[in-house]
Amino acid sequence: MGLNNIPEVGVIMGSKSDLAVMQDAVEILKLLGVQVEVTVVSAHRTPDRMFDYAKSAASRGLKVIIAGAGGAAHLPGMVASITHLPVIGVPVKSSNSIDGWDSILSILQMPNGIPVATVALNAAKNAGILAAQILAVSNDQIAQNLLAYKAELARKVEESAKDVEDGVR
Amino acid sequence: MGLNNIPEVGVIMGSKSDLAVMQDAVEILKLLGVQVEVTVVSAHRTPDRMFDYAKSAASRGLKVIIAGAGGAAHLPGMVASITHLPVIGVPVKSSNSIDGWDSILSILQMPNGIPVATVALNAAKNAGILAAQILAVSNDQIAQNLLAYKAELARKVEESAKDVEDGVR
Amino acid sequence: MGLNNIPEVGVIMGSKSDLAVMQDAVEILKLLGVQVEVTVVSAHRTPDRMFDYAKSAASRGLKVIIAGAGGAAHLPGMVASITHLPVIGVPVKSSNSIDGWDSILSILQMPNGIPVATVALNAAKNAGILAAQILAVSNDQIAQNLLAYKAELARKVEESAKDVEDGVR
Amino acid sequence: MGLNNIPEVGVIMGSKSDLAVMQDAVEILKLLGVQVEVTVVSAHRTPDRMFDYAKSAASRGLKVIIAGAGGAAHLPGMVASITHLPVIGVPVKSSNSIDGWDSILSILQMPNGIPVATVALNAAKNAGILAAQILAVSNDQIAQNLLAYKAELARKVEESAKDVEDGVR
Amino acid sequence: MGLNNIPEVGVIMGSKSDLAVMQDAVEILKLLGVQVEVTVVSAHRTPDRMFDYAKSAASRGLKVIIAGAGGAAHLPGMVASITHLPVIGVPVKSSNSIDGWDSILSILQMPNGIPVATVALNAAKNAGILAAQILAVSNDQIAQNLLAYKAELARKVEESAKDVEDGVR
Amino acid sequence: MGLNNIPEVGVIMGSKSDLAVMQDAVEILKLLGVQVEVTVVSAHRTPDRMFDYAKSAASRGLKVIIAGAGGAAHLPGMVASITHLPVIGVPVKSSNSIDGWDSILSILQMPNGIPVATVALNAAKNAGILAAQILAVSNDQIAQNLLAYKAELARKVEESAKDVEDGVR
Amino acid sequence: MGLNNIPEVGVIMGSKSDLAVMQDAVEILKLLGVQVEVTVVSAHRTPDRMFDYAKSAASRGLKVIIAGAGGAAHLPGMVASITHLPVIGVPVKSSNSIDGWDSILSILQMPNGIPVATVALNAAKNAGILAAQILAVSNDQIAQNLLAYKAELARKVEESAKDVEDGVR
Amino acid sequence: MGLNNIPEVGVIMGSKSDLAVMQDAVEILKLLGVQVEVTVVSAHRTPDRMFDYAKSAASRGLKVIIAGAGGAAHLPGMVASITHLPVIGVPVKSSNSIDGWDSILSILQMPNGIPVATVALNAAKNAGILAAQILAVSNDQIAQNLLAYKAELARKVEESAKDVEDGVR
Repeated sequence: MGLNNIPEVGVIMGSKSDLAVMQDAVEILKLLGVQVEVTVVSAHRTPDRMFDYAKSAASRGLKVIIAGAGGAAHLPGMVASITHLPVIGVPVKSSNSIDGWDSILSILQMPNGIPVATVALNAAKNAGILAAQILAVSNDQIAQNLLAYKAELARKVEESAKDVEDGVR
Repeated sequence: MGLNNIPEVGVIMGSKSDLAVMQDAVEILKLLGVQVEVTVVSAHRTPDRMFDYAKSAASRGLKVIIAGAGGAAHLPGMVASITHLPVIGVPVKSSNSIDGWDSILSILQMPNGIPVATVALNAAKNAGILAAQILAVSNDQIAQNLLAYKAELARKVEESAKDVEDGVR
Repeated sequence: MGLNNIPEVGVIMGSKSDLAVMQDAVEILKLLGVQVEVTVVSAHRTPDRMFDYAKSAASRGLKVIIAGAGGAAHLPGMVASITHLPVIGVPVKSSNSIDGWDSILSILQMPNGIPVATVALNAAKNAGILAAQILAVSNDQIAQNLLAYKAELARKVEESAKDVEDGVR
Repeated sequence: MGLNNIPEVGVIMGSKSDLAVMQDAVEILKLLGVQVEVTVVSAHRTPDRMFDYAKSAASRGLKVIIAGAGGAAHLPGMVASITHLPVIGVPVKSSNSIDGWDSILSILQMPNGIPVATVALNAAKNAGILAAQILAVSNDQIAQNLLAYKAELARKVEESAKDVEDGVR
Repeated sequence: MGLNNIPEVGVIMGSKSDLAVMQDAVEILKLLGVQVEVTVVSAHRTPDRMFDYAKSAASRGLKVIIAGAGGAAHLPGMVASITHLPVIGVPVKSSNSIDGWDSILSILQMPNGIPVATVALNAAKNAGILAAQILAVSNDQIAQNLLAYKAELARKVEESAKDVEDGVR
Repeated sequence: MGLNNIPEVGVIMGSKSDLAVMQDAVEILKLLGVQVEVTVVSAHRTPDRMFDYAKSAASRGLKVIIAGAGGAAHLPGMVASITHLPVIGVPVKSSNSIDGWDSILSILQMPNGIPVATVALNAAKNAGILAAQILAVSNDQIAQNLLAYKAELARKVEESAKDVEDGVR
Repeated sequence: MGLNNIPEVGVIMGSKSDLAVMQDAVEILKLLGVQVEVTVVSAHRTPDRMFDYAKSAASRGLKVIIAGAGGAAHLPGMVASITHLPVIGVPVKSSNSIDGWDSILSILQMPNGIPVATVALNAAKNAGILAAQILAVSNDQIAQNLLAYKAELARKVEESAKDVEDGVR
Repeated sequence: MGLNNIPEVGVIMGSKSDLAVMQDAVEILKLLGVQVEVTVVSAHRTPDRMFDYAKSAASRGLKVIIAGAGGAAHLPGMVASITHLPVIGVPVKSSNSIDGWDSILSILQMPNGIPVATVALNAAKNAGILAAQILAVSNDQIAQNLLAYKAELARKVEESAKDVEDGVR
């Protein structure tokens, strides 16, 4: 966890309308004890802002960037082209997307040299967990939080298993 | 046609390996009497170079930009985000592309505000013709060249029609 | 901008039901100071009307044509086959379309010799902006309007960035 | 069968390179006793020729038209928009096609009012058989030929069944 | 038109739930002066009924069969395998279909020897028109009806063109 | 049918939310006279539980396993990797699925050596019937029940055929 | 294993050209100690033969049917519509298939009531294993053979793991 | 870099045949100064081995796991379900894959709670770079190596740009 509330994960999105999806990343990160900042950065409408954000990210103290975008989603890949920090891409099924295929392919299919760690369509929660996993490589507290989270996932499945078993027979 | 051999169309591509496809644009533009320059600009591996190219394009005298790229193809859209010149995108079916779908969708599906004039997969020749059509709006000589080119296309079809008619009966 | 209110851009669509989408092209063109005319031309139900429209377009003074259609969308390509003016195609996700794939592919995948400048699914606004960019090659006033429009796009993103930053922390 | 060798079926294709596929239609039609003519008509490169062909088809005595094309394949649909004759469309997997999907969708997905009888990708032989079936509605000789052809298909399967049964045990 | 109200076109569908789509075929056929019968025949749930229907179709006087089905749609192809009559297939986007792709591909992609004349997804109206076009090869009255129908289609487009032109300026 | 109410078919699903779909399997199995148990087992959230379930399935007396899951659906394939019992996979179109394509492909495309008997998207009813067919190989009572079920399917189609025939003419 | 060499599994395919793929099913079945017969049955070219095969299968002693076909692949589904035996479908990527999608969807997407146990594209070996798993429900010898086969699969992976570990370090 | 040559990144693959692709991850990791181990682990053929590998990974000192697999690729997701370490998934276009779509979707579309950091099809090199970026969060030497690698990428583009510029004019 960052000292003095300095955010270690930056969550950005191409449009304010992506917030409904991307909020999940912010919430799971807080739950896992990770400091996070969030803002809007459009690769296409504010290219200068995007460049500045990506260029200063490491020096500002960010350690992981989560970028969500829809349609021809260039934000995650362009940020990854500028910074050496790990960039997690969230394909957003926005209103201008073709069932999400455009968002997925334009984030996932990066050329050799510039990876983007892509998660499932709209899976901002998984982007947050992945960012925590990355920080946990050198932060035992976050690692413990992740192990507790995994145990809770299992517990809930077992609970619902009981419900289904009882309900059907 | 540009005075003093100053290029009016800039042809750029994400990788030297795209040249086999993009060369078609250069050749048809020359045939149609348009001055053209060509170079390699990678959005992902040389983001600064891409910014400089796009920001200076209009002031350097370019009037249309043709950008080809494959896979998660961000070059045409990012250039269009920086310049107000018309940008024509050529989806390239490169070796790292999934049958071309990623190239097409990441060029075509630009968000509102930032259009890219997309042509067919690998259709660099059509990108060149489209650039000439754009210049022909205010250049009668290029317009004449285009009309002659269209007439020649028709003539060749009629010729091959004769071949087929004769060959089969 | 055209003298005496003579339209420079013609917006056509295959069916009146496409107007809900295509109206965006008309509005952004007006905003950018471009004279525009709009009508219905069906390649399949009024082939003669389509031929007449395309053949007379240049002599009537049109400089760019925007054509929208859905399903097996032949209107943009057929108009491009008849005129040498630049034709911008808008794939419309109409009720008879398979998620828009048919509209996109039958507009985008034109053969060598006959380009159509294709924009994103339903992106009539981008078609309008692209038409303005084409006219701006030889019209400084439209170029100024485009630059102002781009600045406004950036300003709005920065505004919504503030909203998101304030709302989350 | 047509009197005096007047062709009843016209086979057209968008490009001479489609002949390798479309030849199958010609051959099966001859085998089934149907007079056929064949030529090249490009919707995009020779729109006037296409209009003339389609407008005069019925008066010239043609009863069915088979049209093959690849990529953004507008030929079958445009011919069907001009004539009231049944038009059979053959999607061709040409070199500029995306695995044939563009050819299929731009031929199949015709709007209400203007049908094209679409057959499988590259299935020019089936287009020929379908044309014969259409003529057989009012021509008993062709109907007999079709029944004989179907019987031969079955005979060949039974023959290869024997081969497989013998070879394996 | 059939003598004594004997139907010339049989419209069949795999399930009663397909009737909402297939009714369009029945109605346009009646409008075009063609006698039609309609029933439910399931290839999968009533294979014997399907065989009987297809085997007796020609001898009962049917001249064209229209078959609609969704999902793994085997009805059109199986009927075509049994009869030599032309079979028109209507891919239905039923509730158990994957966006219609399964319906389209399992009707369209018939092997060599057994064509199905496939129309667009849910395009039962076009199936009806195509059946009329097939009958019109040897029936001048239906041909006249088709020409009148085409003229009416054009008239309606011109009418809506006026609406759009007036409404926008 | 199992002696002493010992279940012969185990129905499992990755999440309680899949129950709306998977309940169909339970109901048809009961109708066909097969003892069934049902529970929730998540490959991803309870991998240990999944291993235990699959490893003990045969010794507990289960003869067939039906597993339903959505998205990156690993449950059917992983269970099949651990047990030698036949495993039937039901691709579920869950909320996190891309139109069901991910569910289908990650269940169907198992490598050589480890088959999963895949049924249609959401087709839990067919999974139940298939399980009954497998048991019927050595259980005449279930075979009789299946034959009766098939006869009933045919009867219902004939009934709806009457409705459609009467309603239309 | 069948007494007196009476085959328990029937392997059929739509065309002799599918044998290259379907032979894998025959071989693995023999390896697992299952009697098998193999032949060619075309749903489309020999519908009567297909009906006879499916109708007599159970009474001839067959317990499972494996059916492979490509393109609009109706053979597995049609056989399943006629018999109550479990039918395993193998989508074949034949020359007339669109990358296998048509084969997969027309086998997999069967309507409620008539399941086909579908395996991966070209996965005839897995079809054979699945057939053996079905027979193993009531045949301990085959069950033992399957367990030995699974152990051998694991042993080979461990062997190749050693190779890779040694080769790289 | 790990002390005493203890590997920090484990590279695993479902089959030895994936090594041709996955070797790229090993090589780039070595180039970037990261200790790496490599082996074969099949989720489907050696589920126990996979469980052991994933359960012991963190305690053995691994910090990141790279898992490559093709077809119904369950290896990356299953490993991620067992360990809390970050798991990077490489979709491999193996011979049993449908153009890579199955590999991509079954790795990418993981449910909420269990992320896999997915890279492009066959992009093992990017998986290696991403692993290095993750380690660089707490290892300045690897960070420096990444910055040098990015500079070298840019240098090579500028070099090839010169070639193209010189070659064409």
